[in-house]
Amino acid sequence: MRYAVLGTGEVGRTLGGRLVELGHEVTLGSRSKDNPLAQEWATAAAARARAGTFAEAAAAAEVVINAVGGRVALDALGAAGAEHLGGKILVDVSNPLAFEDGELRLDPVESDSVGERIQRAFPHARVVKTLNTVNVQVMVDPARVPGEHHVFVCGEDAGAKEQVTALLAEFGWPAKRVLDLGGIRSARAVEMYLPLWLTLFRGFGKADFNIEVRRAG
Amino acid sequence: MRYAVLGTGEVGRTLGGRLVELGHEVTLGSRSKDNPLAQEWATAAAARARAGTFAEAAAAAEVVINAVGGRVALDALGAAGAEHLGGKILVDVSNPLAFEDGELRLDPVESDSVGERIQRAFPHARVVKTLNTVNVQVMVDPARVPGEHHVFVCGEDAGAKEQVTALLAEFGWPAKRVLDLGGIRSARAVEMYLPLWLTLFRGFGKADFNIEVRRAG
Repeated sequence: MRYAVLGTGEVGRTLGGRLVELGHEVTLGSRSKDNPLAQEWATAAAARARAGTFAEAAAAAEVVINAVGGRVALDALGAAGAEHLGGKILVDVSNPLAFEDGELRLDPVESDSVGERIQRAFPHARVVKTLNTVNVQVMVDPARVPGEHHVFVCGEDAGAKEQVTALLAEFGWPAKRVLDLGGIRSARAVEMYLPLWLTLFRGFGKADFNIEVRRAG
Repeated sequence: MRYAVLGTGEVGRTLGGRLVELGHEVTLGSRSKDNPLAQEWATAAAARARAGTFAEAAAAAEVVINAVGGRVALDALGAAGAEHLGGKILVDVSNPLAFEDGELRLDPVESDSVGERIQRAFPHARVVKTLNTVNVQVMVDPARVPGEHHVFVCGEDAGAKEQVTALLAEFGWPAKRVLDLGGIRSARAVEMYLPLWLTLFRGFGKADFNIEVRRAG
């Protein structure tokens, strides 16, 4: 599969690297053509790895992964170009986090979500929100955390969620550990989980954790 | 121990009933002296069960449990009276939920929490936020859900959290399944988990579930 991973931060580089290891073709997209992080990543990665602009990455891809921060996602996807996103699966792993005056803040929160904003702005993209509830190392290697812990998918397109569930299986998340939360509106629920994730992270001092949803049979 | 449980809804009656079963003295507090639900509860419960106003309940108690909705908590606690709360452990199990125009909304959200509001309004109470992340049946009978799933405590008073952790053990939550999230500010994190809880509830169609936090050893 040909993937575009938009964003050259740790999330983008780690997801892109894992996809290359799995045999996929990946273009790591950044704002500028000569982003040194992306260039270095592409050189280090493999023949199947390229660096390019957001637009070049999205144009070449069958599946686009948004790995820039939630607050700049619409800008990055706008630069990628609606014409390069239409009809494609658009995986959003972002969170709308920022530190303001030393406080962590979510924006949007509760009455909207990044996932919904992306779907509204790009109505022809098949948006699936997933993986934002775990650290990137856990995203691509869930065995770092013991137990049958879960990730979530939400989105309007059942076929897209199915295909993303298959991608998650490649990362090591079997389908039974992927909980479908319904439409993209549920992005609010998974984005609002972040304060609890961050509070646990502060307490544990490490990011190798996740939640397992336990329920009566 | 002498408990006041403020609120005669399902949460209050269930918590109060379980506390009586455990051998505690419980006054179920309501706005008016002759609340029929509270009277009926007290009659059905046992000699150790009484019904009274918020103020009567709080005055008689060593530990006060806020089991009214988060949005009316300050009103109920104001009626209970600061003079009956000072120095006492005040357990807040509430969530700031309301349905508005068919949408579930939290208020406050993110920049504040019910737990913090209560602690600010009653600075001499020893507020501990806990149990708001599970259904009331699970609160008092965690074995309804399989696995080593967790509840959280947060608050400024370490001794109060210790005592509440002992109460949780009476309910069936051993100390290792009670995660201390630090100060009362973390009430934001557990209150913002509610949209995910509700989304899972809609998906499962039943409330007998909870999360287990799994982490690398």
